[in-house]
Amino acid sequence: MNFCSDNVTEVCPEIMAAVIAANEGSAMPYGADEYTQRLEAKLSKLFEAPVIIFPVATGSAANALALSAIAPPYGAIYCHAESHINVDECGAPEFYTGGAKLVTLGGTDAQINPSDLATALEKAGIGIVHHVQPAAVSITQATEAGTVYLPEDIAEIAKLTHDRNLYLHMDGARFANAVVSLGCAPADITWRAGVDVLCFGATKNGAMAAEAVVFFNQELAKTFGYRRKRSGHLFSKMRYLSAQLEAYITDDLWLKNASNANQMATKLAQGLVKFPLVRLCHPVEANEIFVEIPESVVTGLRADGFQFYVWQEATFPIIRVVTAFNTRDEDVDAFLESVQSHSAVNVME
Amino acid sequence: MNFCSDNVTEVCPEIMAAVIAANEGSAMPYGADEYTQRLEAKLSKLFEAPVIIFPVATGSAANALALSAIAPPYGAIYCHAESHINVDECGAPEFYTGGAKLVTLGGTDAQINPSDLATALEKAGIGIVHHVQPAAVSITQATEAGTVYLPEDIAEIAKLTHDRNLYLHMDGARFANAVVSLGCAPADITWRAGVDVLCFGATKNGAMAAEAVVFFNQELAKTFGYRRKRSGHLFSKMRYLSAQLEAYITDDLWLKNASNANQMATKLAQGLVKFPLVRLCHPVEANEIFVEIPESVVTGLRADGFQFYVWQEATFPIIRVVTAFNTRDEDVDAFLESVQSHSAVNVME
Amino acid sequence: MNFCSDNVTEVCPEIMAAVIAANEGSAMPYGADEYTQRLEAKLSKLFEAPVIIFPVATGSAANALALSAIAPPYGAIYCHAESHINVDECGAPEFYTGGAKLVTLGGTDAQINPSDLATALEKAGIGIVHHVQPAAVSITQATEAGTVYLPEDIAEIAKLTHDRNLYLHMDGARFANAVVSLGCAPADITWRAGVDVLCFGATKNGAMAAEAVVFFNQELAKTFGYRRKRSGHLFSKMRYLSAQLEAYITDDLWLKNASNANQMATKLAQGLVKFPLVRLCHPVEANEIFVEIPESVVTGLRADGFQFYVWQEATFPIIRVVTAFNTRDEDVDAFLESVQSHSAVNVME
Amino acid sequence: MNFCSDNVTEVCPEIMAAVIAANEGSAMPYGADEYTQRLEAKLSKLFEAPVIIFPVATGSAANALALSAIAPPYGAIYCHAESHINVDECGAPEFYTGGAKLVTLGGTDAQINPSDLATALEKAGIGIVHHVQPAAVSITQATEAGTVYLPEDIAEIAKLTHDRNLYLHMDGARFANAVVSLGCAPADITWRAGVDVLCFGATKNGAMAAEAVVFFNQELAKTFGYRRKRSGHLFSKMRYLSAQLEAYITDDLWLKNASNANQMATKLAQGLVKFPLVRLCHPVEANEIFVEIPESVVTGLRADGFQFYVWQEATFPIIRVVTAFNTRDEDVDAFLESVQSHSAVNVME
Repeated sequence: MNFCSDNVTEVCPEIMAAVIAANEGSAMPYGADEYTQRLEAKLSKLFEAPVIIFPVATGSAANALALSAIAPPYGAIYCHAESHINVDECGAPEFYTGGAKLVTLGGTDAQINPSDLATALEKAGIGIVHHVQPAAVSITQATEAGTVYLPEDIAEIAKLTHDRNLYLHMDGARFANAVVSLGCAPADITWRAGVDVLCFGATKNGAMAAEAVVFFNQELAKTFGYRRKRSGHLFSKMRYLSAQLEAYITDDLWLKNASNANQMATKLAQGLVKFPLVRLCHPVEANEIFVEIPESVVTGLRADGFQFYVWQEATFPIIRVVTAFNTRDEDVDAFLESVQSHSAVNVME
Repeated sequence: MNFCSDNVTEVCPEIMAAVIAANEGSAMPYGADEYTQRLEAKLSKLFEAPVIIFPVATGSAANALALSAIAPPYGAIYCHAESHINVDECGAPEFYTGGAKLVTLGGTDAQINPSDLATALEKAGIGIVHHVQPAAVSITQATEAGTVYLPEDIAEIAKLTHDRNLYLHMDGARFANAVVSLGCAPADITWRAGVDVLCFGATKNGAMAAEAVVFFNQELAKTFGYRRKRSGHLFSKMRYLSAQLEAYITDDLWLKNASNANQMATKLAQGLVKFPLVRLCHPVEANEIFVEIPESVVTGLRADGFQFYVWQEATFPIIRVVTAFNTRDEDVDAFLESVQSHSAVNVME
Repeated sequence: MNFCSDNVTEVCPEIMAAVIAANEGSAMPYGADEYTQRLEAKLSKLFEAPVIIFPVATGSAANALALSAIAPPYGAIYCHAESHINVDECGAPEFYTGGAKLVTLGGTDAQINPSDLATALEKAGIGIVHHVQPAAVSITQATEAGTVYLPEDIAEIAKLTHDRNLYLHMDGARFANAVVSLGCAPADITWRAGVDVLCFGATKNGAMAAEAVVFFNQELAKTFGYRRKRSGHLFSKMRYLSAQLEAYITDDLWLKNASNANQMATKLAQGLVKFPLVRLCHPVEANEIFVEIPESVVTGLRADGFQFYVWQEATFPIIRVVTAFNTRDEDVDAFLESVQSHSAVNVME
Repeated sequence: MNFCSDNVTEVCPEIMAAVIAANEGSAMPYGADEYTQRLEAKLSKLFEAPVIIFPVATGSAANALALSAIAPPYGAIYCHAESHINVDECGAPEFYTGGAKLVTLGGTDAQINPSDLATALEKAGIGIVHHVQPAAVSITQATEAGTVYLPEDIAEIAKLTHDRNLYLHMDGARFANAVVSLGCAPADITWRAGVDVLCFGATKNGAMAAEAVVFFNQELAKTFGYRRKRSGHLFSKMRYLSAQLEAYITDDLWLKNASNANQMATKLAQGLVKFPLVRLCHPVEANEIFVEIPESVVTGLRADGFQFYVWQEATFPIIRVVTAFNTRDEDVDAFLESVQSHSAVNVME
């Protein structure tokens, strides 16, 4: 059973059905098809605001392109040190922006602390030519630690951001998991809280390869079409991207998928903490669990066929366990049973 | 009926079936799946040589990434003035290479003339710091004019290229159409003729969104993985790209598809040239027809529901008509009948 | 005697004196010195308009930085095929703009023909994402062929430029030679004719290493300070750049220097055309002479100690002869005498 | 009296004399002059090893160009968080490398701690495409805190660097001050300790605007000429750069100048620590003093006409005081007297 990531899953049936359904007759290329045309209206409805959207196929592309639309080459982009854009994109933001600098901040649970941000902006030397110029702040929702920002946290960060004439970007590779976790409207943690541009991820939550860059601040979208094309991210047969995204937001599929993933993560976390030598590294608020666990249990789990990544090698390694739209109760039960069987001590109950 | 481009088509049944078949269970991400693993071996067999391959989703991405692997930022890339990389990629090669210059050459039928290339290289100022330094030559097979380079043409260009320590890139967005047109082995117009890296296109010939960057010169592939990732072109669920490519080369599907497209183009061209005021702009050697045609016929064709692009506005406009894997005899017949019905004069027979 | 270029000369006495005079006591760095502070006002007076100026040390830096301020990475910059920015800067404009494309135009005497420009802009596909987007036009005054644009030529180009919302850049490496040649005010061939940003060269006309980027369109200057710093062109001891520029425009030194250079070029050209096998390739309107001349004369001139570049190898090679602020009557006479002595035939008089 | 920086000074007499002496007759441009030709041999002698050198005019240019020669666009450059390349060059390294990432390390006195570097390299994910790839380490000698690395410190860092196939860059804006401080040979803290490329600064130590990029690893220099040209840092009248550098290393001028600066800093530091409320933030090993000092004293010093930068605002602000080649004993005495006169308490003696 594969808990390595939510990107190891197949495509969920509803989205695959939409792809198949889209495979009917000819369609004008590069987004001039009916699927793409109506997607913008549907996302505007979902977000309760007029948005400009651009489908792309990967999260790294979505993030890097969005950042290039809001930060000049001499800009600084403030982000958490553990953020995907800083750690896992091989320098994509630097490439796309023409050399902007990611200025990293600390903060528990992979969340930017507003006071750290305020201090960093205070010291940034705005207007002094020797220093890269603050241009954007990027937050991830849900975070890389499997936690979520509250709407008021985002609003506070947005205020600091806009007070300095910067823009706020949200990496929403797991946006659905955050919305489900908070039980809020999509607008509550995006434009209503001050987000200017969102990378609305679908790939990790049941799609094949589809993300939408969603501009709430429409002025910022003006150069995006050119940037997407010249980066090779404008699909000729775009209907297949748009059809995925349309199915994803139809009949709340995105929320249902995320809901299952989150519930399975919660169940798994609740089961794990009952073991005495197991320690959760972060609150489990979405679909990722980071857990310190005896090495013998890691070995045992693997022997039993469970797959996951070791996040930090140690005597008590930290492993990451990710649930997905298709994780089943019995998968979680089996995982917990395996832990139980490899634990030298009994569950504390 | 849509003759705008071979990218307006749906996905061919065999490839869609492969995508559906791949949608079974979990698979490790980023190419660590079985589909991608075996694709390299299959393409090596197809090309009769060990190759290193990288699946990506668009032709612009394939070209720009391949060029970035063979040209430094201060490099010059020689290409035809009408090449896709020069005209239709919004500066993708310049972006990916960090600012290399496309030096354009003329030549009939969108083909580089070896003697023009020789002259340009002679004058390039190799080793003189004031000038961008010749790094690569890029040719398109089949060309943007719907013609094909002969193996000996390619070999001559390759010799000039390698004599100066440059590398030869082939944009093969319509590679299948060229192979079918020439009746040659894929190797004959690639590594045997001196091509170092090929962008092996599938999207225009029946795939959903899949191209393989194929390195014959394996040394050149060393940096590609990083370049692909940092441009956002590394798919997490890569099996869906690889499954398309695998189906594409299985049971000669790619050749069958291209064969139909080429035959339909030939038939259409043969029908068109019988009309007195119609003039072919280029030999029809693949699946694209560029034809000068009375404006009244253009209007009539459109009224009858035919779609195509006007390549050059004029009293006698030039239109581009593109056939595809799924163009049918009756589509071509209908097109010709429409031309007939809107021609003031009779067919010369 | 060295006629290779106007950059082989020493620094003219007035400018060297100013550098020496500036070497007195401490001064705040990076332009916060008195020399730099007053230079902007002096240039504003010279140009009869408020300008924002940035001293840099080389012409390539001035051009590339100026272009990066007016063209986005997906932009197209229209220029003459023989322009310095296209031929002699090793891709500096592409580097600084992040990959914009130089779209080259022909035109006799290295001058852009307005009708060619109009046609190119017409065909550029403005607003279509597949194509680089017209952003700027660059002209050189005096041109690389030693000719000058008339004020009305510039105005016509500027109108085409601004009608499409592009910006007009002037490479003024030999701006002084053009002003002297036309007998006009500096404003007449810059902002009054529609130029948005000028690279005002001094190095080739007697300075050590000093150029001023002069923004007439002040809005365009907003990002320049950051761009200059991050390219390493912000001098800490900037007073030595500014002192050169100040001396350069004091007491019409720049015009006196250019006047001598132009007069010597005219005299030389008038002498040369008297020889039967000598042919001027371009009108001599500034300080550069391009002349077709028998190979035996080239050999003879070199034997007599004259230095110049052969521009085009041939049976009748084309050589470039450049005069400067310090070329003397006797230098020109000696050159002509050498030609005479190596000419098999007599002067036609 | 101006203690803001060592770049507020005029040019030292010997260097100005060399510039004036170079102003004699014509010279071939772009480095084909006699001054530049012999400079390489002289620097090879100075460093006791064959070097390839490139004069440029600013330290930011030298650093960014050198880094671009040793780090690919997807590379990581390890440096101290307080390093000039990270803080004070407005993103020049990112610009020149095409988007490489500066990975910052802590460490007291602005020095990289080898064990921190080892840990960072261990965790870097070499060979994993998701992560930027370790390419270079950059250290500053003397550091931005006015301290110096010992030869053995550099050797340890170099070993870690080379063990991973990275290259070692040294920002030597104040290299002379380090050599004087250590009393070592230039080779001892460069190639003998493992440095691959040094930016050998002269501007801060008496030159007008001149630095030499010095390659000990000659293979790395191969692309530098093109990179310098296309960044606009190739001077046409290069003799004026080279003449500065030649004078700088003639008759140990560079060491004499640095010796004075260091001695004055030591004297000033020794005087300052006698005041009870004054605290040195770093050992004073070169020509920069960072000192915590009562706000009233800061105000008093300014009222007395002393200039310096406040490095950190606080109740007890930290100020930076920089001495130079031309700082005199009486300047230091005057500074100390001013501190004395504004101190509420007496000197502890």
